[in-house]
Amino acid sequence: MKRNVHLAQLQGNYLFPEVQLKKENYLKQNPGVSLISLGVGDTTQPLTGSITRALTQASLGLGTEVGYSGYGPEQGKKELRKKIAQTIFKEKFSWEEIFISDGANGDLSRLQLLFGSDISIAVQNPTYPVYLEGSLIQGVKEIHLMNCHPENDFFPDLKKLQRTDIIYFCSPNNPTGAVATKKQLEELVDFAHKNRSIIVFDAAYCAYIQDPTLPKSIYEIERAKEVAIEVSSFSKSAGFTGVRLGWTVVPKELRYECGHFVLKDWNRLVTTVFNGASNIAQIGGCAALEPEGITEIKGVVNYYLENAKLIKEAMQALGYEVFGGVNAPYLWVRCKGKKSWELFHYFLENKKVVTIPGCGFGSQGEGFIRLSAFGNRQQVLTAIERISCQ
Amino acid sequence: MKRNVHLAQLQGNYLFPEVQLKKENYLKQNPGVSLISLGVGDTTQPLTGSITRALTQASLGLGTEVGYSGYGPEQGKKELRKKIAQTIFKEKFSWEEIFISDGANGDLSRLQLLFGSDISIAVQNPTYPVYLEGSLIQGVKEIHLMNCHPENDFFPDLKKLQRTDIIYFCSPNNPTGAVATKKQLEELVDFAHKNRSIIVFDAAYCAYIQDPTLPKSIYEIERAKEVAIEVSSFSKSAGFTGVRLGWTVVPKELRYECGHFVLKDWNRLVTTVFNGASNIAQIGGCAALEPEGITEIKGVVNYYLENAKLIKEAMQALGYEVFGGVNAPYLWVRCKGKKSWELFHYFLENKKVVTIPGCGFGSQGEGFIRLSAFGNRQQVLTAIERISCQ
Repeated sequence: MKRNVHLAQLQGNYLFPEVQLKKENYLKQNPGVSLISLGVGDTTQPLTGSITRALTQASLGLGTEVGYSGYGPEQGKKELRKKIAQTIFKEKFSWEEIFISDGANGDLSRLQLLFGSDISIAVQNPTYPVYLEGSLIQGVKEIHLMNCHPENDFFPDLKKLQRTDIIYFCSPNNPTGAVATKKQLEELVDFAHKNRSIIVFDAAYCAYIQDPTLPKSIYEIERAKEVAIEVSSFSKSAGFTGVRLGWTVVPKELRYECGHFVLKDWNRLVTTVFNGASNIAQIGGCAALEPEGITEIKGVVNYYLENAKLIKEAMQALGYEVFGGVNAPYLWVRCKGKKSWELFHYFLENKKVVTIPGCGFGSQGEGFIRLSAFGNRQQVLTAIERISCQ
Repeated sequence: MKRNVHLAQLQGNYLFPEVQLKKENYLKQNPGVSLISLGVGDTTQPLTGSITRALTQASLGLGTEVGYSGYGPEQGKKELRKKIAQTIFKEKFSWEEIFISDGANGDLSRLQLLFGSDISIAVQNPTYPVYLEGSLIQGVKEIHLMNCHPENDFFPDLKKLQRTDIIYFCSPNNPTGAVATKKQLEELVDFAHKNRSIIVFDAAYCAYIQDPTLPKSIYEIERAKEVAIEVSSFSKSAGFTGVRLGWTVVPKELRYECGHFVLKDWNRLVTTVFNGASNIAQIGGCAALEPEGITEIKGVVNYYLENAKLIKEAMQALGYEVFGGVNAPYLWVRCKGKKSWELFHYFLENKKVVTIPGCGFGSQGEGFIRLSAFGNRQQVLTAIERISCQ
């Protein structure tokens, strides 16, 4: 059996395991040191009351005859699909256009399977690694990078961008924390229409948008339904990074060149290679969309946004240029002329604080580090104290 | 954007939605009729006490500071990986060779992504659809069928089988209920060694094996570690069809032609395109492997096996030739000269009982129907009564 060439060509380690390794090596050489992470985008706050109650009741119910459930529909419980259509999209979609996933990452990989290898893609640079690496594993050959940096307001120059079949776009952005404006997304949708491309819009962080003029969904843009798939998640809103639950919108209006509906193929694929998200998680997701859940979640999001504000102010006070951290849980910090791994090591060794080197997200990330606001407040304050201490 | 040719070439609907549709159409034309399903392999019995308690405590814990957890390792919680290595494999593997999944189906699809499209595969005929359809979606071109029928004891004639890179093999088999003997699996492992093929062994139903001479795992066969990956699941043992949890074993000994370790590529792939199974489900899985959980699960398995026995006896009393249903939850019933869909419609319309037409699992399934033992006892007894009533 030959090795899959697409895996053979993947470079080194995935970013986060690499950071983990460096952290562990440092701890081996410096036993007893307690590090604080301002890096990985992992939620830390307990689930809220109403969601915890729903998960608990769902679990308890599985032990009873009336509460037990086996396989659900692969596309997700109808109740949850309907709730997302109602609550998040105000009936802009029917429930049949909403597919429940075990998180955005899983559905991104299944979308890549849907598209196949014989396509061209565009990804932001810097980018969350899975758009690129998942596509490489799938065997996609033609990949164009959309450079995003402070000088272009983190939005690519579409006039210079070659046409591709798929355009991955993440806003609020991981890692830069940049949020695309309505005008920018209009440009993007227009570009996709002209080129008959499909936008895969990653809205996993949309709960962090506080400014009402900024679009929380690509579907706030006119004619987006004909060109865009939107991937989203309960991870960063409801704190389901461990519970695993997300959704993907595939509009009825979206068609391939030949006229065939993308929705039909997606439905065929999902019902074949996926067996649905955990039934417990789905009941938790329903609770997260009830009025009580929504209010509670806002509280958690505000907590993380307050962290972002504190970190941003502290870094700025130290003379760092900081992007993001407003309407987004990530902060993108320019390394004052240092390289990403240099500043990573500087913070690790001198401040005992773990960050994520921006270069791990692509060449345009070189010279930046990513900080995350998902910490526990006390830890964040301690990290700030360590960083600020000269 | 062009449609993916691999999806375009997929035939019609997936089997189970097709059955569902026929059922719904029948109910539309015959409102008020109550149908009983002896078809779909979906568990019906509540989760056992200790597992329910573990899931409930895990859910409750997520609402507290100490009990909350976000992203776990993509490969699964170390505790669960260790428990599987200890309890199921008696330390034949280290925990690093065990990967936790959201069920066998998800990992089968990820394995297909691992292998890529430039391979040849062999699948049993009849077969559980995902080996074949997942491979077709991935773009695999060379597919060989291993005919399995009563006349060859449901084991393919390996002397006539062409070499392939991958051999999918499921035992206890879905749909036939056939269980491969030790001698048969020795032949298979030997065949894989000679051909440098990789066996993907699906052991999802191994909990149903009561006969101690029958192998529950491919790794009971000598030298299997060098040629086999084993996929398994908590679905049909612990009743986790809805909770979603499984595991895959990729032995350290397994290498590609070039010498590269399959484990390394698998680890790279899993940590890129998957974010781990639900943390709640994983804690439930740990409980299922405790002595109390194991004892409870045996009770549920015996309950389903008793169903199988009752169905088998009833069908035999009606003169049907029945395979499987011993050491397996599926029964494979010869249609007395009828075609699969004919007998399906006969049972649907005349007996108000839903079955699964064997032809949906491949050409060798024509002339058979699949019955499942996963029903509730009362329903099974009523179905038997309906079927037996002349």
